[in-house]
Amino acid sequence: MTRNRPAQDQHERLRALRHQVWQANLDLQRHNLVTFTWGNVSGIDRESGLVVIKPSGVDYDELSAENMVVLDLDGHVIEGDLNPSSDTPTHLELYRVYPEIGGVVHTHSKHATSWAQAGKPIPALGTTHADYFYGDIPCTRALSDEEIKHDYELNTGVVIAETIGDNDPLAIPGIIVKEHGPFSWGKNADKAVYNAVVMEVVADMALQTLQINPQIDHLNPALLDKHYLRKHGANAYYGQSSSNNE
Amino acid sequence: MTRNRPAQDQHERLRALRHQVWQANLDLQRHNLVTFTWGNVSGIDRESGLVVIKPSGVDYDELSAENMVVLDLDGHVIEGDLNPSSDTPTHLELYRVYPEIGGVVHTHSKHATSWAQAGKPIPALGTTHADYFYGDIPCTRALSDEEIKHDYELNTGVVIAETIGDNDPLAIPGIIVKEHGPFSWGKNADKAVYNAVVMEVVADMALQTLQINPQIDHLNPALLDKHYLRKHGANAYYGQSSSNNE
Amino acid sequence: MTRNRPAQDQHERLRALRHQVWQANLDLQRHNLVTFTWGNVSGIDRESGLVVIKPSGVDYDELSAENMVVLDLDGHVIEGDLNPSSDTPTHLELYRVYPEIGGVVHTHSKHATSWAQAGKPIPALGTTHADYFYGDIPCTRALSDEEIKHDYELNTGVVIAETIGDNDPLAIPGIIVKEHGPFSWGKNADKAVYNAVVMEVVADMALQTLQINPQIDHLNPALLDKHYLRKHGANAYYGQSSSNNE
Amino acid sequence: MTRNRPAQDQHERLRALRHQVWQANLDLQRHNLVTFTWGNVSGIDRESGLVVIKPSGVDYDELSAENMVVLDLDGHVIEGDLNPSSDTPTHLELYRVYPEIGGVVHTHSKHATSWAQAGKPIPALGTTHADYFYGDIPCTRALSDEEIKHDYELNTGVVIAETIGDNDPLAIPGIIVKEHGPFSWGKNADKAVYNAVVMEVVADMALQTLQINPQIDHLNPALLDKHYLRKHGANAYYGQSSSNNE
Repeated sequence: MTRNRPAQDQHERLRALRHQVWQANLDLQRHNLVTFTWGNVSGIDRESGLVVIKPSGVDYDELSAENMVVLDLDGHVIEGDLNPSSDTPTHLELYRVYPEIGGVVHTHSKHATSWAQAGKPIPALGTTHADYFYGDIPCTRALSDEEIKHDYELNTGVVIAETIGDNDPLAIPGIIVKEHGPFSWGKNADKAVYNAVVMEVVADMALQTLQINPQIDHLNPALLDKHYLRKHGANAYYGQSSSNNE
Repeated sequence: MTRNRPAQDQHERLRALRHQVWQANLDLQRHNLVTFTWGNVSGIDRESGLVVIKPSGVDYDELSAENMVVLDLDGHVIEGDLNPSSDTPTHLELYRVYPEIGGVVHTHSKHATSWAQAGKPIPALGTTHADYFYGDIPCTRALSDEEIKHDYELNTGVVIAETIGDNDPLAIPGIIVKEHGPFSWGKNADKAVYNAVVMEVVADMALQTLQINPQIDHLNPALLDKHYLRKHGANAYYGQSSSNNE
Repeated sequence: MTRNRPAQDQHERLRALRHQVWQANLDLQRHNLVTFTWGNVSGIDRESGLVVIKPSGVDYDELSAENMVVLDLDGHVIEGDLNPSSDTPTHLELYRVYPEIGGVVHTHSKHATSWAQAGKPIPALGTTHADYFYGDIPCTRALSDEEIKHDYELNTGVVIAETIGDNDPLAIPGIIVKEHGPFSWGKNADKAVYNAVVMEVVADMALQTLQINPQIDHLNPALLDKHYLRKHGANAYYGQSSSNNE
Repeated sequence: MTRNRPAQDQHERLRALRHQVWQANLDLQRHNLVTFTWGNVSGIDRESGLVVIKPSGVDYDELSAENMVVLDLDGHVIEGDLNPSSDTPTHLELYRVYPEIGGVVHTHSKHATSWAQAGKPIPALGTTHADYFYGDIPCTRALSDEEIKHDYELNTGVVIAETIGDNDPLAIPGIIVKEHGPFSWGKNADKAVYNAVVMEVVADMALQTLQINPQIDHLNPALLDKHYLRKHGANAYYGQSSSNNE
């Protein structure tokens, strides 16, 4: 019995993760972030290094905890009969580079994608943004023709990591990939979806803000500090516990 | 028995107020004014000076009349196990300064928040606005770094009151706080929610109006008078009683 | 028996009209044209000259065929305990001036109201517009201070009629009142609601069109003729009968 | 028995096609592409050359597989008591010119129609577009007065075909007709509806993109190739089979 415990534990954790990732994928639809199948969520079990991700091109109605695909960090399918999301190499690269990330989301949500197509970072213009993103949401450079032609999805992850550099990925838990669309992440799949919703809202409001007042610049850095830090870190006081919004 | 009557009366009033404030918080969601938990409504029982407000960071689905938080005007929690909304000091300041206010609402509704981020008052451009707001909806100045660093939420209320000055808070029952978002109020929690909806609608239409015609200025003051006064005050004739929209 | 027939006929017609006007008011909500109670529909029984209209300030949920208000063309309430819509004098003026009109609608729908606030006619830019409106949807002049101060709602109708002049009101079955919002009409209450929906859609698209191409002008008059006339008049061939869209 | 087989086969195919076309018409409504009856879908059985199309001006609620209209490619009604969509001659022309097309859709969806009214092609600005349209979505020239006055609906099809020229209609499976609105197509009715949805989404995002950054130009051609070809053709790898998105 004792010998089997670790295997059983991993089995239980993966079972729970499959369920969480399945529900997180459905949450994309509940929050109106996806058209058809254009979005995917993954989550990782750091102990085993196994990633659970949505299968490619399957309708949200047909998703289940059971048809999620399980891969290792090198991209080998460990469990599942369906092809994983075509964006899997991007997800895996983010998990490899940032051990603090537990969930990744990609969508083509309309407002954030419009900023990506415009090739501009989403500026931090108010406290809604500051509550979850500790500064502008960056826009990557365009991929080179070579990066597009070979290992495109992997290179998308590489360029994201290049843009983040040494910054804390959880302080600004999302990015827009130029000419493409938003990626977000978090401590787990649920937080990554939450951040995808926030990106869409602030992208919507940022455009309206600039239409009302084209001269507007970034919000006061003191206000950025205040709002971000009242929700995150040791001195957070929003919600029912200090870790509520981490 | 007689001795207990006042205590029983207060108990009944608070019970009714908890129910009203709970439902008013749900109304924010029904009117599409909130994403996640980003909004809060409070109401006050003026006789006892007790305020009922939404708990902080709790999903709307999990709210109930019972888990609303009751505080006195100094911010001491009188009833409730959960932390009150982090914006509570702003609500309390408004109740202290304006005895005519019975309910307060704060949201990050998208259109009104965009005007707040743009740092511009929402101009009175038509009768929809004039029906409920007797002039432009003002935008506060930005808080100073000091005001942000210490007692931020209280200072938000202070700056709102500074902006309203000696004007009647019920004549223009809402404001946008620069770089932040809208606050509204009314004779009770329901009216405050009603005014939050109106602010969002007129904020949406004001931007569209300026996009159609950037030269447009304020509506005719005679029309502002007509529409506001046919719904408010002694000579109101809209609805089924003269006090219908007060 | 024979003597009572005409009274019975009128009773039946009014009963049917109450039902139609009640449902037409609910249709405003189904088509997302109204916030709260900000819209009203009326219909007229031309034989008796009686008008059925929504009561003022009553929630859509509480409307019924029974609580609709019945008035004569001079504004005397014939049946009903509630106050009629405060916009009733506008409706009555339109019925008095244009015998071909059988239903009238007023809303504050967001896109059409934005054009009204901007003080610009909604230009005929495509076939969607041409299918139902045979030219630009005009914008009235602003009412004078005198017209606002005395008999405001009546004068709103007078200024609408002044704008239409000798043109056929059914060829362009709607108008926007400057600084206020849209009115529409039709052969009956249902058609008037239909035209209110069309106005909102074409108002939305007209702004987007001008944002994409500020140089755009009106659509080809030959195309306006083609689309309008394939749906209206003796040579109509859209739908299942030539009178389908009249 | 044997003699009847071909007739039975055709009967079965038409029965299935009626069902598919009926459901595809309802999908227009489910995807919010239509107001009232303003959209139509058809499908063709290439073996018999028979086309199934929505009847004209009938509410979506009243549509059924049974009341779809069946015509031959010359426009003779073969089955059905109702008038076919007034846009039928446009559909037929597309089927006659492009044997690879199995379904056609026309709507007045708001964003795509706004581009049509603006008379501008919808530019390929990002990967969402590139996933389904291998380049800009063209805008036709305006029809001449003569083309409008005689055989208008047929000439709409002729001008669409003139615009596509020798290009592969399935590589860019949609177009906007100037001053009118979008048409899309695909291997069958379902794919045509899918492409109508994509057109509406990319039309929405293209305007927002240009509002954020008016200087933006087309996406990198290498990225257009990558995204289009990972979903279409021999080397596709998106979804669960290479033909998933054809």
